[in-house]
Amino acid sequence: MNTATTNRVFRLAARPVGMPKRSDWDFRTEPVAEPGDGQVLVETQYLSLDPAMRGWMNEGRSYVPPVGIGEVMRAFGAGRVVTSRHPDFEPGDYATGALGMQEYAVLDGKALTKVDTNAAPLTTWCSALGMTGLTAYFGLLDVGKPEPGQTVVVSGAAGAVGMVVGQIAKVKGCRAVGIAGGTEKRRYVTGELGFDAAIDYKTENVTKALREHCPRGIDVYFDNVGGEILDAALVNLARRARVVICGAISQYNSTAGVQGPKNYMMLLVTRSRMEGFVILDYAARYAEAAREMAGWMKDGKLVSRCDVVSGLETFPETLLRLFSGENLGKLILQVRGDG
Amino acid sequence: MNTATTNRVFRLAARPVGMPKRSDWDFRTEPVAEPGDGQVLVETQYLSLDPAMRGWMNEGRSYVPPVGIGEVMRAFGAGRVVTSRHPDFEPGDYATGALGMQEYAVLDGKALTKVDTNAAPLTTWCSALGMTGLTAYFGLLDVGKPEPGQTVVVSGAAGAVGMVVGQIAKVKGCRAVGIAGGTEKRRYVTGELGFDAAIDYKTENVTKALREHCPRGIDVYFDNVGGEILDAALVNLARRARVVICGAISQYNSTAGVQGPKNYMMLLVTRSRMEGFVILDYAARYAEAAREMAGWMKDGKLVSRCDVVSGLETFPETLLRLFSGENLGKLILQVRGDG
Repeated sequence: MNTATTNRVFRLAARPVGMPKRSDWDFRTEPVAEPGDGQVLVETQYLSLDPAMRGWMNEGRSYVPPVGIGEVMRAFGAGRVVTSRHPDFEPGDYATGALGMQEYAVLDGKALTKVDTNAAPLTTWCSALGMTGLTAYFGLLDVGKPEPGQTVVVSGAAGAVGMVVGQIAKVKGCRAVGIAGGTEKRRYVTGELGFDAAIDYKTENVTKALREHCPRGIDVYFDNVGGEILDAALVNLARRARVVICGAISQYNSTAGVQGPKNYMMLLVTRSRMEGFVILDYAARYAEAAREMAGWMKDGKLVSRCDVVSGLETFPETLLRLFSGENLGKLILQVRGDG
Repeated sequence: MNTATTNRVFRLAARPVGMPKRSDWDFRTEPVAEPGDGQVLVETQYLSLDPAMRGWMNEGRSYVPPVGIGEVMRAFGAGRVVTSRHPDFEPGDYATGALGMQEYAVLDGKALTKVDTNAAPLTTWCSALGMTGLTAYFGLLDVGKPEPGQTVVVSGAAGAVGMVVGQIAKVKGCRAVGIAGGTEKRRYVTGELGFDAAIDYKTENVTKALREHCPRGIDVYFDNVGGEILDAALVNLARRARVVICGAISQYNSTAGVQGPKNYMMLLVTRSRMEGFVILDYAARYAEAAREMAGWMKDGKLVSRCDVVSGLETFPETLLRLFSGENLGKLILQVRGDG
């Protein structure tokens, strides 16, 4: 039985200009809500911190509505069911969903997915088997469509999505090349993750390094960063390449406007395509994908590292680790200690 | 029998910076070459002037090798066979091919296509039934894949490719919206060409006008221009739209570098793709496409206007009409009067 009556929650206070700062949030203590019919009360264990959050804070047309001023900050996470008024859930079950940046969430049962903590720890359900792993899976396989023997390049290769993209590319018989910043990430990518090569964009000329590591050109470029790295990939495309647009972390906090890919005419030269996707469109296939990825994990073909930071209250500062390039692996906020 | 022994020819003298100027060419008089075995001597009647020519003058990786300094300027055109040492051609036949910017061309017979001047005049074989018409046909149908009832938007709508794109869109049961510069072109697009709407980018806010004319969004955007118009189209895409990259005339003479599409993340928001193509890849299907388009012409569903300028010697200045936005319809240089 849960006896907590208070819920600490981050509500959006202002739309950030450039990097989000603490004053863009309203960190409050509120009463825990009561679940209505068909709803479930979940105690948050872990929350996923993702670059996409920065986009959700902006006004304007996007793939989901922006978080409104005064609303709980949107966040995916995993938690433990406290009270259930939905037939599929019982107290003590573990589940994932859009819990929000708070300690207790009340959601419709149909917006939650029950997870098996014997199959994988809760942090993995927030990472390789969660939204970021699924993003890698569907973006690479459904949009990128790599074929055995082809070359797959991914930016943000030591990040939550990128690390999974390269490993799935290897599972599918491709050559995997990662782009990441710094010696430690570079080593992680070719070592622990088993990519064929890695490029450190902080010290190397990316255009030249891609030419060296992809002598037959890039067949699938999975982009998480945008900006100059996207341009470097475009000039190295093979014929009929696929550029998967997943994110543009280099541009999210820009106050000077987005830098468009000036080499986009290489799409014509190489007869290639650049395509965007939104993971939410694949909801009907999440379970199937997670099952396949759990199998690869069991076989040691898919590993994932989590960068877990404790304390809901650290959210505003911890989020910035994504944009400074500090974190390695999946960035997760630990809200409770017993997950 | 041809008795001419001299050939006037434009050879590339220098790589232009910005707009090409007369001194970038070497306009010479040379002896007419003799066809070898399997070759044909063709007397040029008409030459097609195209924005792509500007790209062929630059060094660097592209879909065809650049024209070398000292080489005859590459140009597609139509002419009359003078002498043939290839079994498929006889003197007096008319044919199209990459004749080059000159009065007489010697080509391998297999690089020429015989055309029927009873089916359409020679200028039409350089326009709607030539490379620009075929570019519209394959770019729209094979890359853009419009479905009946969808909205097709094309930039450069009063130009050689654009005018055909919109008319084929209508044949296929789509709504066709054109973007062009100036009142005369705007009228031409909705009048003679039968598009549903036209936007004058010189006097209208293109983003706003597209929103008005495409209330359900753009399903296929066929881009000939790049720059700000491409950005305006990107923010107006429907879900799962196709952006066909055919050209970027606004950028070809830029000395400040190419302006990349800063709104490219709309590809993610709308789950759309941007794809380039090169007409040369469709060579095996040219005849089939020309046959279908000739049928539409006969039925009055496909019209085409040519802007014919006389005199090979005017080439350097006539070419600039494409970039100043002066010409309407297909720009053609008339080299001989009897085509």
